[in-house]
Amino acid sequence: MSALLSIGTIAFDDIYTPHGEVKMIEAGSCTYIAMAATQLCQPVQLVSIIGDDYDQDFLNDLKKRGADLDGVEVVKGGKSFYWAGKYHDDMMGRDTLDTQLNVLEHFEPKLPPAYRKTDYVMLGNLSPDVQSSVIDQMETKPKLIALDTMNFWMDIAMESLKKVLKRVDVLIINDEEARQLSEERSLLKAAAKIVEMGPKILIIKKGEHGALLFNGDKIFSAPALLLPKVVDPTGAGDTFAGGFMGYLASTDDTSFENLKRAIIYGSAMASFVVEDFGTRRMQTITRSDIDGRVGQFVELMGVDL
Amino acid sequence: MSALLSIGTIAFDDIYTPHGEVKMIEAGSCTYIAMAATQLCQPVQLVSIIGDDYDQDFLNDLKKRGADLDGVEVVKGGKSFYWAGKYHDDMMGRDTLDTQLNVLEHFEPKLPPAYRKTDYVMLGNLSPDVQSSVIDQMETKPKLIALDTMNFWMDIAMESLKKVLKRVDVLIINDEEARQLSEERSLLKAAAKIVEMGPKILIIKKGEHGALLFNGDKIFSAPALLLPKVVDPTGAGDTFAGGFMGYLASTDDTSFENLKRAIIYGSAMASFVVEDFGTRRMQTITRSDIDGRVGQFVELMGVDL
Repeated sequence: MSALLSIGTIAFDDIYTPHGEVKMIEAGSCTYIAMAATQLCQPVQLVSIIGDDYDQDFLNDLKKRGADLDGVEVVKGGKSFYWAGKYHDDMMGRDTLDTQLNVLEHFEPKLPPAYRKTDYVMLGNLSPDVQSSVIDQMETKPKLIALDTMNFWMDIAMESLKKVLKRVDVLIINDEEARQLSEERSLLKAAAKIVEMGPKILIIKKGEHGALLFNGDKIFSAPALLLPKVVDPTGAGDTFAGGFMGYLASTDDTSFENLKRAIIYGSAMASFVVEDFGTRRMQTITRSDIDGRVGQFVELMGVDL
Repeated sequence: MSALLSIGTIAFDDIYTPHGEVKMIEAGSCTYIAMAATQLCQPVQLVSIIGDDYDQDFLNDLKKRGADLDGVEVVKGGKSFYWAGKYHDDMMGRDTLDTQLNVLEHFEPKLPPAYRKTDYVMLGNLSPDVQSSVIDQMETKPKLIALDTMNFWMDIAMESLKKVLKRVDVLIINDEEARQLSEERSLLKAAAKIVEMGPKILIIKKGEHGALLFNGDKIFSAPALLLPKVVDPTGAGDTFAGGFMGYLASTDDTSFENLKRAIIYGSAMASFVVEDFGTRRMQTITRSDIDGRVGQFVELMGVDL
């Protein structure tokens, strides 16, 4: 088992969905990645920034799960990153109601010495320059660097994004983002263009339609489980990424066959997180729950041809 | 190998897509179903209606492929069903430019005696009453009756549609239609409701996202191949249905495992038809082309967990 290093946000969210609302719930990309990845591998070394207003019980629980918080900077008197959003009735779209960067505004990640030789690195959704500064600080070349990003950075920081893309092995984005980044409608053409930008492995998330994995001329299509009820989609993508990278670090195998397995583990993790608000559902799952859901994927996809 | 009976339209289409246009091309649900199904099983007994304006060479070719045209009524002096449509630039939507029912307006299908004991029946997209009249004429209970329909019939003939649904084993519709029919957004809930309406087997087509198969508490998710170029999506659904039912008739096996295989064969057939206008591509494929594409599905879906 290898360690996993992850950068991302640790935030408070207010979330409104047709199924209810929560205020100041623990969230953020680093939080979701850590909750998923620690189910599969330890330690998960976190790089983030919070104010001293953050929930200490929650952080202690993360530690118990196998997260290393030495790389989480705590700003005295600072306020943690805050986001509020409301999902549409069909749960497909959402509106951002409020964003307060707070301590995140001046975030300059500094990796503790123990993090600088880690083999698996997950760059959660943040500005491409901040993601790049993590790679700068690595003392040995990681076996696999994965990057998550979003349309926001394509809109305002495309050049920086293109620079960091040259330095990573895996890009994890959704279908809309793949089309925006490549300026191609066909996902096949989009994938070919994006792979030329740097990441030799591309994962395109399609929400309820599953995910596609591209590596060289090989393609894998993973379905999504059909869920009776989605309570809160927030963090599904981060949780997928955390499960994916957690599985790879735990098995220390980056073959195409194992990348496919990692996609299924990531998808299984994402299928849990949406069942309740924030990371609540992730706090209750066991390894046997995860294996059970991976078994559902096997049934859903299995065909003897 | 069992025979397959199929009802549907035999039409002339004018089709405009971003890749070009064709006029008066041979099309219609029965045509597409026959072109796909005859690749896998013979005979495919067609029930349809045309005018004496239809292309005799095309009909002779269909016969050579294993279609039985005894159930195709030819109206002296009549004009064949005609449809014209234009696809949007993104190929996702289309506008109907013209529809001329012509001989289809007074279509009352009469099954030749040789058709009335056929085990596999495909009711292509037509009015639910016309579909029902085929079942009325069967002298033995078929092993499997599948029905295709569309939102148009839900809008204007929902009661008739619900009646015929009680009499069929398989319903093949797309995701939008499943949501309209069930009044549920979740496809899982939609499937549960639709199965209560009659068909114990439900296939939900999701276009570029593949297809879902529901049977009891079992679900199978099939991906779609990623195609470099879609020239003309017309008939993809009918071709899928033809491949699906052709495979089932050829293997004479309606187990869940075989239904899954049939979905892959249907999907493979649909991946060919969109590569050119009308049925042009279907006229050139061989069994080895089909097996090759089924092999692509195996690679696309295969994961060892």
